[in-house]
Amino acid sequence: MSTPFDPGYGLQPFRTLVEDVPDATVFPTKDFRTEWGPVFHRGRLDGSARLLIIGQDPAQHEVIARRTLVGGAGHRLQGFLAKLGLTRSYVIINTYVYSVFGQGGGNKHKNNATIAAYRNRWFDALLPGQIQGVVALGQLADAAWQTWRATPTGSAFSGVYTPVTHPTQPESSSKGNKAKKQAAITKMLQGWNAALQTLKPAVTADLPGPLVPYGTAFLPAELPDIPQGDFPAGSPPWMCGNADWARRTGADDKLKRVTITVTIPKPFRPS
Amino acid sequence: MSTPFDPGYGLQPFRTLVEDVPDATVFPTKDFRTEWGPVFHRGRLDGSARLLIIGQDPAQHEVIARRTLVGGAGHRLQGFLAKLGLTRSYVIINTYVYSVFGQGGGNKHKNNATIAAYRNRWFDALLPGQIQGVVALGQLADAAWQTWRATPTGSAFSGVYTPVTHPTQPESSSKGNKAKKQAAITKMLQGWNAALQTLKPAVTADLPGPLVPYGTAFLPAELPDIPQGDFPAGSPPWMCGNADWARRTGADDKLKRVTITVTIPKPFRPS
Repeated sequence: MSTPFDPGYGLQPFRTLVEDVPDATVFPTKDFRTEWGPVFHRGRLDGSARLLIIGQDPAQHEVIARRTLVGGAGHRLQGFLAKLGLTRSYVIINTYVYSVFGQGGGNKHKNNATIAAYRNRWFDALLPGQIQGVVALGQLADAAWQTWRATPTGSAFSGVYTPVTHPTQPESSSKGNKAKKQAAITKMLQGWNAALQTLKPAVTADLPGPLVPYGTAFLPAELPDIPQGDFPAGSPPWMCGNADWARRTGADDKLKRVTITVTIPKPFRPS
Repeated sequence: MSTPFDPGYGLQPFRTLVEDVPDATVFPTKDFRTEWGPVFHRGRLDGSARLLIIGQDPAQHEVIARRTLVGGAGHRLQGFLAKLGLTRSYVIINTYVYSVFGQGGGNKHKNNATIAAYRNRWFDALLPGQIQGVVALGQLADAAWQTWRATPTGSAFSGVYTPVTHPTQPESSSKGNKAKKQAAITKMLQGWNAALQTLKPAVTADLPGPLVPYGTAFLPAELPDIPQGDFPAGSPPWMCGNADWARRTGADDKLKRVTITVTIPKPFRPS
């Protein structure tokens, strides 16, 4: 039996990048949940990634797992990667290493030069390498990409770029209205299908095969597990699954900000 | 600003050791909390450690932080290391990589050959190197050490060995009786003072200085923070402190086993 894990940031340039992460003096606590610590990436840092994905910011699952896009949005993304035949040759970073707090916190810092300079160091470390394609999830990720593209190193990138709707935009835009959410998912998947068409011929697959587009909603098989090898050493296997295993708890808003309850999903509980 | 972190298990032989961790077929779920995943170590894996500490098993703080002895017992140990002038040249592993569940779960597997064989691979990886001294915390750790010493590689070790009382034995032995607990702490610290006398001349300090023995109880300064550099990348600074930031919650025993609530300590909460 061999349990794979992600070795993380021991090697340069990532070791220094992690040590140099800006704190609350750059990411103010009124706009970012700096108190939960930064989350840097998920996927390959060893130069083997062929697709770069830019997310927005980590949430409660991510600060517990210490890897990004492992919650609900992450499973939607993992299905997108699977349609490209990518089972391991990808790397994901976020627009913001800290979780955004409150409405508009993310937009407010869209043009923050210090935040952009730090993020650009990550782009410089990961690109071009053998990255053949880039996907931006949502408008802030698109802006982050454009900011890097305007730099001398960024202007040299010649791969494919596809900005798409963020995986949880249907939830955030529909505010509990189920019909609106379904319509937003259908619309989002149309955009994702178009992006897949662009990416498929450009990005070499780990598992070659025909492109099977999305329908009007996510099928269960389109929300696959996150690979165990994307998590740090010792991470339990239920972290790979799509159950809601981390929740913000706490009796009032103040306590909710500082409390996360981790509950092992039923199928993984000892009998 | 530079935030240190522990790079973990990217290099051999630790990478393979982590991949090869036995699962619940070796550590049965009736005796071990395998569902929370293994915790492997804390401290230096780069050969710079001069003191090896053998703990017993991880608990709730450790499975969240993914490093061992970071809770209450860890702070007591950190003060012990400080008295030896050790601020970074140490490494800690446990008798069991999984948390022991229930009374006697640990004792029952004291002579488990598969568990010992895996643990001995960690000893082989860390010893002798430049390890000058070994500390065993509690009887199970002592037994683990003796088991390794009986192997061909173990018999070659020529450093100092000091078995001491486990840092939380005063709590577990006194069962809520405050006077008993205080007496047990005093007795434990007498033993720790004797061990310090043995270790001090044998183990080269990071910060040389005179040995200041314990009194009859722990002083606040004798429970120092765990160094940030002992935690994985992105770990928030409050994990270094001695507040009880991880608790087993859940309405009944079954839910308590599968639930951990992480609460940021007051001084670290956003205002």
